[in-house]
Amino acid sequence: MRLKIAATLDYYFSQACDLLLALEVAPLADQKLVEDLLTVKGAGPLRPVADAEGLGRRTWVPVEGRIEAEYRATVDVERAPVALDGLEIAPLHDIPSAVLPYLWPSRYCEADKFESFVDKRFGEIEGGARIAAMAEWIRGEMDYVPGTSDTNTTAADAFVARQGVCRDYAHLMATFSRAAGVPARLVSAYALDLDPPDFHAVVEVWLGGAWRIVDATGKARPETIARICAGRDATDIAFMTSFGPAQMNTQSVTGDRA
Amino acid sequence: MRLKIAATLDYYFSQACDLLLALEVAPLADQKLVEDLLTVKGAGPLRPVADAEGLGRRTWVPVEGRIEAEYRATVDVERAPVALDGLEIAPLHDIPSAVLPYLWPSRYCEADKFESFVDKRFGEIEGGARIAAMAEWIRGEMDYVPGTSDTNTTAADAFVARQGVCRDYAHLMATFSRAAGVPARLVSAYALDLDPPDFHAVVEVWLGGAWRIVDATGKARPETIARICAGRDATDIAFMTSFGPAQMNTQSVTGDRA
Amino acid sequence: MRLKIAATLDYYFSQACDLLLALEVAPLADQKLVEDLLTVKGAGPLRPVADAEGLGRRTWVPVEGRIEAEYRATVDVERAPVALDGLEIAPLHDIPSAVLPYLWPSRYCEADKFESFVDKRFGEIEGGARIAAMAEWIRGEMDYVPGTSDTNTTAADAFVARQGVCRDYAHLMATFSRAAGVPARLVSAYALDLDPPDFHAVVEVWLGGAWRIVDATGKARPETIARICAGRDATDIAFMTSFGPAQMNTQSVTGDRA
Amino acid sequence: MRLKIAATLDYYFSQACDLLLALEVAPLADQKLVEDLLTVKGAGPLRPVADAEGLGRRTWVPVEGRIEAEYRATVDVERAPVALDGLEIAPLHDIPSAVLPYLWPSRYCEADKFESFVDKRFGEIEGGARIAAMAEWIRGEMDYVPGTSDTNTTAADAFVARQGVCRDYAHLMATFSRAAGVPARLVSAYALDLDPPDFHAVVEVWLGGAWRIVDATGKARPETIARICAGRDATDIAFMTSFGPAQMNTQSVTGDRA
Repeated sequence: MRLKIAATLDYYFSQACDLLLALEVAPLADQKLVEDLLTVKGAGPLRPVADAEGLGRRTWVPVEGRIEAEYRATVDVERAPVALDGLEIAPLHDIPSAVLPYLWPSRYCEADKFESFVDKRFGEIEGGARIAAMAEWIRGEMDYVPGTSDTNTTAADAFVARQGVCRDYAHLMATFSRAAGVPARLVSAYALDLDPPDFHAVVEVWLGGAWRIVDATGKARPETIARICAGRDATDIAFMTSFGPAQMNTQSVTGDRA
Repeated sequence: MRLKIAATLDYYFSQACDLLLALEVAPLADQKLVEDLLTVKGAGPLRPVADAEGLGRRTWVPVEGRIEAEYRATVDVERAPVALDGLEIAPLHDIPSAVLPYLWPSRYCEADKFESFVDKRFGEIEGGARIAAMAEWIRGEMDYVPGTSDTNTTAADAFVARQGVCRDYAHLMATFSRAAGVPARLVSAYALDLDPPDFHAVVEVWLGGAWRIVDATGKARPETIARICAGRDATDIAFMTSFGPAQMNTQSVTGDRA
Repeated sequence: MRLKIAATLDYYFSQACDLLLALEVAPLADQKLVEDLLTVKGAGPLRPVADAEGLGRRTWVPVEGRIEAEYRATVDVERAPVALDGLEIAPLHDIPSAVLPYLWPSRYCEADKFESFVDKRFGEIEGGARIAAMAEWIRGEMDYVPGTSDTNTTAADAFVARQGVCRDYAHLMATFSRAAGVPARLVSAYALDLDPPDFHAVVEVWLGGAWRIVDATGKARPETIARICAGRDATDIAFMTSFGPAQMNTQSVTGDRA
Repeated sequence: MRLKIAATLDYYFSQACDLLLALEVAPLADQKLVEDLLTVKGAGPLRPVADAEGLGRRTWVPVEGRIEAEYRATVDVERAPVALDGLEIAPLHDIPSAVLPYLWPSRYCEADKFESFVDKRFGEIEGGARIAAMAEWIRGEMDYVPGTSDTNTTAADAFVARQGVCRDYAHLMATFSRAAGVPARLVSAYALDLDPPDFHAVVEVWLGGAWRIVDATGKARPETIARICAGRDATDIAFMTSFGPAQMNTQSVTGDRA
């Protein structure tokens, strides 16, 4: 499908500082960029981060006062639905070096704390069906309630609160997966017809020798998602990182069928 | 029933320091002290904390080098079993001033974080039956595994880990109860034939206008328990608080039918 | 001095719920109530918490929709300035039973974590001068910056952030004091000409056999403070505790010379 | 200098499980492997993690019962001392994509919490001298006390406790550095004549366009260190990760002049 993306960020910066934007869709085999353009009104020159590969285009921009960042893209997403159930969990010693870090706990994904729970609840289910069962459990137990979590909220916090947004669902999903010995990473993305329309966070799990998209919120099907960045948790995939105080005026994100 | 209690603490203190012991059974209407004696070999004079009322006898002792504290007591426990199911949850405005602090979150009982979970899981059960359902849930979901928790472990930690000891079961029980608007406090105690034999921690919940003992581990029936101290959580009821480095040689606790 | 207090809380409650207000000045030997009145427009009947003694008047009120709580008081504060330097730190075994709980760590005052720091920085100063040095250190190292902390912020968090408001200064002060073996509690209060005008939080330390007021922010002198509630930390002294979602419209607090 | 390394790990595993060892020195321009050998008695076949580059050789081994892992290596360390003072802090937009993740906070390095402290204490010092001042501050304020921290201890915890071991010093160093906008990573290493002899953890900071070794403990000079692995914090550089319960019998590590 062809996805048309529009993101607008209108912010105010009381001091001159550096801003790192991670808004740009990654050009990959299963999501081809037809065209895209990032512009920032009221700011200095854009400098892409050097040498980024795969998921992870990022752009530095010096800002001061009011800026308006716009990103427009048209992407052909060509990704067939994948049934997790049939996929194999890799033996630990077959996990490639570049994938191994996504097996470890991270700041917002305290996988080591969840080993007993995950083993009790999901330990008897084999292969990719175990991951599917985790996603279903999360959807059933969590309530999607904007405003109940913040940038400090971890997977353990969300597990206790039973409330959160896509970031929290993704943290829980990645945490459960790692606790079961399956590498998992967070991915920032645009998605078709998201409700409410916003940046999205999903998870990729390492199953059958490849990364597979899982959206524990159930809000977006993998075949309608255009990925931006991947990382260990929310730390790595923020769409905007400001090195000075930032104040939001307005922000909007849409993903429509082109 | 008549309970015979013996506790021995053999410790080494590399520096002179103060030690606070909370080993002595409280003399109360439902647990009458026939006799008891606390002795500490190798230490300075014992000084009871002044003005303690109700649950909370405590004794200071200056220590240095090896000490051996012994507590022996015979207690007549005259406490009829109480069915929680028939008891009423007090309206908030009827909670007495002295009970109100046990409604708040505390260091190891983050009740405020659990409100949504507790409401979803137990919100439709009325009165004391709600508390009984919480105790049953904890017994079913937690595994009693010594060594999996420590003095920093909170109720939220135990909820994630699904493992712990009596301290953790009691923290979870008090936390769930407070999150549902029912005051709850931790109580240190001796219990009949505890397995493994040790100091015990249980909970008292405020139901039907009185404190009611609940043991979420299921290891001791309320009518076989002799209470020592009560407090907001483990902070308040430690059987031993050392103001210098302490090293345990051996420790034993038994509660037998006299 | 005669202090004239006015507090107004204009809030909206989307659901019927119970509200606990702790706005009323405690009548004590060193702060005599000339007159005071709490009124709540748009709410049900006020019910004072039964049996409150000393610091700790509180009132329940059922609310729904918009309410406007007003508290007006005239208080004669007759409290001579006390030099902390000349006061003695009590030996541990002389601390009364009712004061002992304020020696322990609490949710927002992790005194046990600070023992080494407090010993290194303040250990060589004797008596009340040690407490005075702690208050001075806090004033020197912390920046008073509203908005940098929230209701989850602990003393350790504030120690790392080096920023906060009166609540954070008070938590640090109580934490340092307890870590040095001196009981300390948080006290909510009104104060003369506070800048910015707001509810205030100070600390009482147990020195020379009595509670002594310390304001680590330096914003209010003890002889111009009218105390409301005391407790282990912010948990116990909230001026308003809502058992349902609350939305603030406006709020104002003033303390003027009558 | 030529460094001779010997590490022996004698452990017991009550269940069959996978073990990941990160004991092997990385072959790099400034540390040339003359020879090395990893052997594991009592275990299944060794399988190196595929595709590891730079710092990060790791080996999987299936274990059950008692195993004895031995690593012997001879390494020519050819690394000239570098004065940090003369080195430039890179502008943010010059940080390469592969280095950027080491600018972010991580589980044990909560750099975002320390921005105000770091700015106040070190903000006026320019360039590499700022990093040198941080290392000096840490050495002066922290006490090296084995047993005071554990695998859960974060930089913030160590900052409060003012005690710890090399892991804690390294976390603090990396945290301060990132909080000042300088990428920093943890590195596991062997070092000459370490006292007490053990695995070591140091930091590499990104200064003057390259990674520079900093040992905040002051125990090892950079020119006598042989590096094993690098990562965001202790999560990534554990010398042994067990996927089942492990019990240590004995362990020894030495680094001698060959």
